[in-house]
Amino acid sequence: MTQQDTRVTAGMIVIGDEILSGRTKDVNIGAVADFCTDLGIDLTEVRIVSDEQDAIIEAVNALRIRYTYVFTSGGIGPTHDDITADAIAKAFGVALPINEQARAMLEARWKQTGTEVNEARLRMARIPEGADLIVNSVSAAPGFRIGNVHVMAGVPSVFQAMLGNVMPTLRTGRKLMAQSVPCPHGEGDIGGPLGEIQKNHPDVVIGSYPRYDGKRFSTEIVIRGADEGAVNAARADVEAMVAGLAPRAVEG
Amino acid sequence: MTQQDTRVTAGMIVIGDEILSGRTKDVNIGAVADFCTDLGIDLTEVRIVSDEQDAIIEAVNALRIRYTYVFTSGGIGPTHDDITADAIAKAFGVALPINEQARAMLEARWKQTGTEVNEARLRMARIPEGADLIVNSVSAAPGFRIGNVHVMAGVPSVFQAMLGNVMPTLRTGRKLMAQSVPCPHGEGDIGGPLGEIQKNHPDVVIGSYPRYDGKRFSTEIVIRGADEGAVNAARADVEAMVAGLAPRAVEG
Repeated sequence: MTQQDTRVTAGMIVIGDEILSGRTKDVNIGAVADFCTDLGIDLTEVRIVSDEQDAIIEAVNALRIRYTYVFTSGGIGPTHDDITADAIAKAFGVALPINEQARAMLEARWKQTGTEVNEARLRMARIPEGADLIVNSVSAAPGFRIGNVHVMAGVPSVFQAMLGNVMPTLRTGRKLMAQSVPCPHGEGDIGGPLGEIQKNHPDVVIGSYPRYDGKRFSTEIVIRGADEGAVNAARADVEAMVAGLAPRAVEG
Repeated sequence: MTQQDTRVTAGMIVIGDEILSGRTKDVNIGAVADFCTDLGIDLTEVRIVSDEQDAIIEAVNALRIRYTYVFTSGGIGPTHDDITADAIAKAFGVALPINEQARAMLEARWKQTGTEVNEARLRMARIPEGADLIVNSVSAAPGFRIGNVHVMAGVPSVFQAMLGNVMPTLRTGRKLMAQSVPCPHGEGDIGGPLGEIQKNHPDVVIGSYPRYDGKRFSTEIVIRGADEGAVNAARADVEAMVAGLAPRAVEG
């Protein structure tokens, strides 16, 4: 647990057959990744699981003991295939009653919009016992937080509104500086010297991200670290290395 | 194992700090999802893990015993942060020697392009003992298959070229039919009747996917199943249900 004293970590669980079938292309993972990076939270693992209760329970219980925070997206709507609240309640071993605060919020909105109250809609007021609501401005249906797990909607605009409302409640971490050096050469040219630079700068993490534009490879080199001086020193070495490379025609 | 006799399943592991930091937005998951759906393979779980050996080993060993196939993307390049081959060799308990076939392929390409052979580049010829190469037309650097695990590049065009070459080697599954019914109403209106239709059509799986356009919610209802008649029958019931709904002003 020493690690958790200094780092703030997160795991994410995306719940949805529509992502696994390819029908919907996920954008919530990228949103959480950006969100965590902005807050100095280290997003360490993401799992995408199907709309099956056991799969959700297993993922939630694996990640919630491992990371400071867990964020989930998907499966909290009013239809029969929305089973996230049930699975979370089971994962925590608590009941899933109608939450009166959630019901009041939903009924106020429904009254405003002339929406019929029905059994399906009231499913969205079922909140695990002991959870706090995560409200949002887009939809009246709340998400919820139980323990360190934040359960949010799958629709991206609703998900992001909920994430914004969760933000002030989170402990933030030491934000890493990241500096990026573009390199017109493929990784094969820089692999050796870049490894040496990494060895000489143990206080930063140097990542190398290849790109291919259909004709040639290039690389983006990213230096991350908590200390500005250390990041700048490593960056200077990386830039000097890149500048010293002979121009090349094709990288393969 | 009865389930595996009739279904072909897959898990995917995306290896990359750049995805978890938000710097790169993943597109390989969507490509694998579409690929599996086309082949009747049931993509059941995806994990995104960081560039840490223990994280990769844990994910590989968890998924390879669970699913017919595992696909990985990322971390097989020539730089110090490319540790996937090392992790896979450890996960399988085998050595990671220079593979002579891989070396010959790489050297042929390097000769053609006048590329210097160096230690970093030769890292890409290190292949776990007992693995088969996954060649691709974009880059000379091969991926590899060991057991049921297919280890491929992170760069999307290279990843997709490798996936295309893996395809003929895979057992395909029973391809599901999927029919989609657009519904101009939010899920709250259809939750009750849609649940009834699901109960009346146990041989299909009915999914409901909400959308929000900034003003109102709508829903895409998807009916999946192996039997065309069953899918069509459920679809007819869904269409009749949608047609019978009163027009509504706002969904909240």
